[in-house]
Amino acid sequence: MKPPHPDPLARARLLTSPSLGPAVVRGLERITGRPAVPPHTGEPDGPFVYVGDTLPETLRTPRLLWFHSVNAGTDALLAAGRWPEGALLTRTVGRMGERIAQYTLAWVLAECQSVPEHTAQHSRSEWRRLPSELAAGRTAVVYGTGRIGSAVAGLLRACSVRTVGVGRSPRAVPAGFDRVVLAGSEEETSALAAARWVVSALPLTGATEHFFGTVRFTAMRGATFVNVGRGATVDMAALETALHDGQVRRAVLDVLPDEPAGPADRAWRLPRTVITSHSAGITADDDVVADFAACWEAVAEGRTPALAVDTARGY
Amino acid sequence: MKPPHPDPLARARLLTSPSLGPAVVRGLERITGRPAVPPHTGEPDGPFVYVGDTLPETLRTPRLLWFHSVNAGTDALLAAGRWPEGALLTRTVGRMGERIAQYTLAWVLAECQSVPEHTAQHSRSEWRRLPSELAAGRTAVVYGTGRIGSAVAGLLRACSVRTVGVGRSPRAVPAGFDRVVLAGSEEETSALAAARWVVSALPLTGATEHFFGTVRFTAMRGATFVNVGRGATVDMAALETALHDGQVRRAVLDVLPDEPAGPADRAWRLPRTVITSHSAGITADDDVVADFAACWEAVAEGRTPALAVDTARGY
Repeated sequence: MKPPHPDPLARARLLTSPSLGPAVVRGLERITGRPAVPPHTGEPDGPFVYVGDTLPETLRTPRLLWFHSVNAGTDALLAAGRWPEGALLTRTVGRMGERIAQYTLAWVLAECQSVPEHTAQHSRSEWRRLPSELAAGRTAVVYGTGRIGSAVAGLLRACSVRTVGVGRSPRAVPAGFDRVVLAGSEEETSALAAARWVVSALPLTGATEHFFGTVRFTAMRGATFVNVGRGATVDMAALETALHDGQVRRAVLDVLPDEPAGPADRAWRLPRTVITSHSAGITADDDVVADFAACWEAVAEGRTPALAVDTARGY
Repeated sequence: MKPPHPDPLARARLLTSPSLGPAVVRGLERITGRPAVPPHTGEPDGPFVYVGDTLPETLRTPRLLWFHSVNAGTDALLAAGRWPEGALLTRTVGRMGERIAQYTLAWVLAECQSVPEHTAQHSRSEWRRLPSELAAGRTAVVYGTGRIGSAVAGLLRACSVRTVGVGRSPRAVPAGFDRVVLAGSEEETSALAAARWVVSALPLTGATEHFFGTVRFTAMRGATFVNVGRGATVDMAALETALHDGQVRRAVLDVLPDEPAGPADRAWRLPRTVITSHSAGITADDDVVADFAACWEAVAEGRTPALAVDTARGY
């Protein structure tokens, strides 16, 4: 992932997706010091930088110097076709860690405090004290020990939840975690058995497809499963069985293997489950501009931006 | 509030309310080293200690050495009749600060993350991304700067919410607060105008009845009002007007002036409001036994327990 050479970058045109709002486009023009143009039909005739959500086939050419994605997840982008050799891929993370952490804590506490049940009682004008559960002292197992997993764990720990991370290689314990265990180890199985919550912030790669299947779900003993990563990391049939058998107490799914889910999708009928339409990790206009600016600064100095994606590994 | 004299306490009988569960009664018998008896009809014939939720009129006698309440709030108890002179009153706080803090954060984040709206969409099998709001950087004004208010503020601050306490006398800034302003000051009015959330953890005393009325509600500019204190601190007509006019964005009311609220209660019809049936600050059986044990130890050493209530001030 080398940054583009300064010479072609100085000459490059800035192409922006029609899906971008005017405030984002103005921000990008200001940062790059050139006008933004919508992509033409057909291959552009010189080097270009493109900013958007998807990369149209016509723009997957050797003239693409750099694509900046307005999203954090780049799996669909990389799966949609061969990546143009030498092109830089950067992404927008924004305040995603913070957003996903607050989403996760919102649903964890909503369960502890019976928020949906109170809302339903209210609509029936029914006064009835409902039990609550203290999150303190319970254990959450968090998959993904990078920026997002670390933010999720840190916020759970503010509520005195014990936090166990699951990683793929031995490493120092990142911020927010009490400890980290290895995926596939006996420690992972014990952690799942003790977990009150299992939160996945895993990206989708070849190694994580159907990562949550029968083995992991049957290791749980009544944990609530929260997926803020990618839908295809979950074997939905295995989840359904675990919900029916009680190994999984409840499921909060921000993501599904097939999105958007149509009304006939079997996922809507899973017991004790709520699906939240991929709303956890939104990126705001401000996030796109700020993250592109940071990438632009790095590239201008000949550095690889921190938000660059390794297009071979997929994240 | 002097502790009972050791001599009558040594002879005192332990009376327990029929409302207590068997685990609580066994715990109290263990701590005091004597059998628990239910209250007789008529005045007991010697000194006694009573543990329960309410204090029946027949037990409001000079022979009452000590009443331990299984609840934290003692306003109803003190309002129900004259307090027997010299009798110690202690209360159960348990992990109430922690519980009320998690309740408050649950509803704050439920609003930020559209938890009720997602639940409703799910029930319609509807996939639609909903906006979320980051709590970070917003301001919460918390009334009550004691143990409970401090716990509420501390947990909100873990989500990077700015926390302003409102107190009745100048004092050092308690844990959890960024700053404290005086009730009735211009700083209070400015804080209310800037607040995204206004949380009340006020007890009910002569000074706090209808404390939240037209003046405070009209100082708000779209704050959500959360009441985890006492219902009668709120002028419900003023709240209704402020909800209609938009000064109050939403209301989360754990408590009401008249509890339990019947189905005809006007409170159920307030716009953008949820009522949660006085569920925020429950005390568990363990809490009653642990807090009584701490009081018993203090009394045995001739000290006034930390959980003693000043029956003149009311808290």
